[in-house]
Amino acid sequence: MTNREQELEKRLNLLVKFGGMIAIETNLNRLLELIAEQVKRLLNGDRCTVFVLDKQTNELWSKVAHGLEHTEIRMPFGKGIVGIVAQTGQPINIKNAYSDDRFSSEIDRVTGYKTRNILAVPLKDVTGKIIGVFEVINKMDGDFDAEDEGMLFLLGSFASAAIENAQLYESLNKSQLETIYRLAITAEYRDQVDTAVHLRHISEYSALLAKGLPLSEKEVENIRYSSPLHDIGKVGIPDAILLKPGKLTPEEYEEMKKHTLYGAKILCNAESALLQIACKIAGSHHEKFDGTGYPIKLKGGQIPLYARIVSVADVFDALCMPRVYKSKWESEKAREYILSESEKSFDPDVVKSFEGVYEQILKIQSLSNDGKTTVIPGITKELHKHTF
Amino acid sequence: MTNREQELEKRLNLLVKFGGMIAIETNLNRLLELIAEQVKRLLNGDRCTVFVLDKQTNELWSKVAHGLEHTEIRMPFGKGIVGIVAQTGQPINIKNAYSDDRFSSEIDRVTGYKTRNILAVPLKDVTGKIIGVFEVINKMDGDFDAEDEGMLFLLGSFASAAIENAQLYESLNKSQLETIYRLAITAEYRDQVDTAVHLRHISEYSALLAKGLPLSEKEVENIRYSSPLHDIGKVGIPDAILLKPGKLTPEEYEEMKKHTLYGAKILCNAESALLQIACKIAGSHHEKFDGTGYPIKLKGGQIPLYARIVSVADVFDALCMPRVYKSKWESEKAREYILSESEKSFDPDVVKSFEGVYEQILKIQSLSNDGKTTVIPGITKELHKHTF
Repeated sequence: MTNREQELEKRLNLLVKFGGMIAIETNLNRLLELIAEQVKRLLNGDRCTVFVLDKQTNELWSKVAHGLEHTEIRMPFGKGIVGIVAQTGQPINIKNAYSDDRFSSEIDRVTGYKTRNILAVPLKDVTGKIIGVFEVINKMDGDFDAEDEGMLFLLGSFASAAIENAQLYESLNKSQLETIYRLAITAEYRDQVDTAVHLRHISEYSALLAKGLPLSEKEVENIRYSSPLHDIGKVGIPDAILLKPGKLTPEEYEEMKKHTLYGAKILCNAESALLQIACKIAGSHHEKFDGTGYPIKLKGGQIPLYARIVSVADVFDALCMPRVYKSKWESEKAREYILSESEKSFDPDVVKSFEGVYEQILKIQSLSNDGKTTVIPGITKELHKHTF
Repeated sequence: MTNREQELEKRLNLLVKFGGMIAIETNLNRLLELIAEQVKRLLNGDRCTVFVLDKQTNELWSKVAHGLEHTEIRMPFGKGIVGIVAQTGQPINIKNAYSDDRFSSEIDRVTGYKTRNILAVPLKDVTGKIIGVFEVINKMDGDFDAEDEGMLFLLGSFASAAIENAQLYESLNKSQLETIYRLAITAEYRDQVDTAVHLRHISEYSALLAKGLPLSEKEVENIRYSSPLHDIGKVGIPDAILLKPGKLTPEEYEEMKKHTLYGAKILCNAESALLQIACKIAGSHHEKFDGTGYPIKLKGGQIPLYARIVSVADVFDALCMPRVYKSKWESEKAREYILSESEKSFDPDVVKSFEGVYEQILKIQSLSNDGKTTVIPGITKELHKHTF
């Protein structure tokens, strides 16, 4: 085998490995980090940055810059090396950065880093439209050559497809979360309470409680997004009962209890994992650990864990909110109540988790009381400001 | 350059082109067709079939078989050439199919095709788990060799990632549509009419009307999925008005009209494209082309096109349904009413489209009257059977 053959075979294998590795990462930030790491290694550079074109602002942004972490860099389209590559669609290979006019030593001055050479190539989608720029800095041995350029170009074609996919996935995922949240708000539309604040509390408290239990990160996120649907069944309760200012008669209370059954019915048989979980929560968040709850007096482990968690979050938040029929409780009094109901209303493990995250819950509560909005990740601020 | 070098360079380029081409197709069926077509061409075979493992049934299914279209083939895991490749994870290269025990000539007998040689390789995800099998049949010139095997393996590694992505995207997209549909059902929960049938009609009629207008396929799908949310604002209307059996007083009617404003408010400022469209529809589906509608007397082109379309679908379906305050109209009478309201209530272009698709609308209507369920694509049958 000739050297060239060996080189080509090696490339082919690296490319296939690279393509396979990055193709299935759907989280954009993790994907960009993974790409930067791999490209840096494959090109034997000291740093690699992946810039993504923000079509709204016409800037190239990057969150990943190895050795310069937690910085978001933004470059205007057409300015600087990265901006010029994006504008012209042509690669730039600079052997001596400091003798090139297009190079700005600004970042070096701030970070104390010394840029020697730079290779930057455009990232294009299949139609040839620029979606970003790859920049590799300081080749470990010597300068970047035509071979490196070709390789970076090939890596870029795979990276572009993966980045586009991740963006698409992220936007669809956001749409899904947004739709679920609007579903929750719609269901509580008729209630007079501050729906947005209550839903946010349920969501954040439930996620905190879940974090204190042996649940995976994915499960914590699931409860964060499905818990706001717990009272969706209230759409089935007549105004005369739901909006009654006074105490409910025993018959009215029986009718009111049915919101759990209605909720489970609305959400049943879903294909979506989030809606499946929401269904369990809607149906069982009024069950009690000792079997004295409703609608079907489930007991202990028979109650889905997600519902046992939301139950604590829901009761705590309801106690701390003013209602037509009761004034608002002090947080400390509400905390004591939750603790006193361990093994009665509540799962003792969830109560234990509640104790552990109580300070964090108070913090979220005080932010709301201050009128400062906290935001459920993935849900826009605008949506949270919704007050009907 | 040696022959081998040329061959390797050619491969590298083909692979990159193949990878880029398939990576961004998120529709699974189209993706599988594209892969089969490309692989057939790249390997100079007469046919290529991509089999996908159905984890539920443990079968390998394929919808794409060139020259044998519209057939879904299903092979049990472990049986036949494809099943054995999936089970062992090893490629199979057969030079003479009819002298190999593993080959079944069943399909050849049915189709009159003559299988000569076969190359089949497993499709694996990054963790090495089998997700399907590639099968190429009848190399145009001679037999499949080790080179073909290697190439098919490389193509497979890209195909696997793309297939996994498309599956993920499809399932998330389904979740999104499902959630929107449940949002629509929730909003109409209190109404006494057959919500599921009405929502399905609105969805299908609107899509048909849109098809008759110069709208893209994407726009037709958008209206199909967002139109069921047109009356979501009804959640804000008190029971006493929404559920009143008799005629509304002028004051009550004014209150009822507000469902358009409430709907627009619930759906406003969405990031999701579908919810953005739904917002326009909810807010303007009672506007009239001549400016005499509500809530803000928009006129002609000021009314969003999506709302002008849903307006016709909504009125036609309402006329053909029995209501507390009116009996059900004959379809022909309703059709004449729609036509007579051209340029008054309705956009004449939408009315023209209505005339064109009227027979198709009647067909959907008669299916519902027969109690036969038609299904909005992407929404499960179970969901449609929901009657509250």
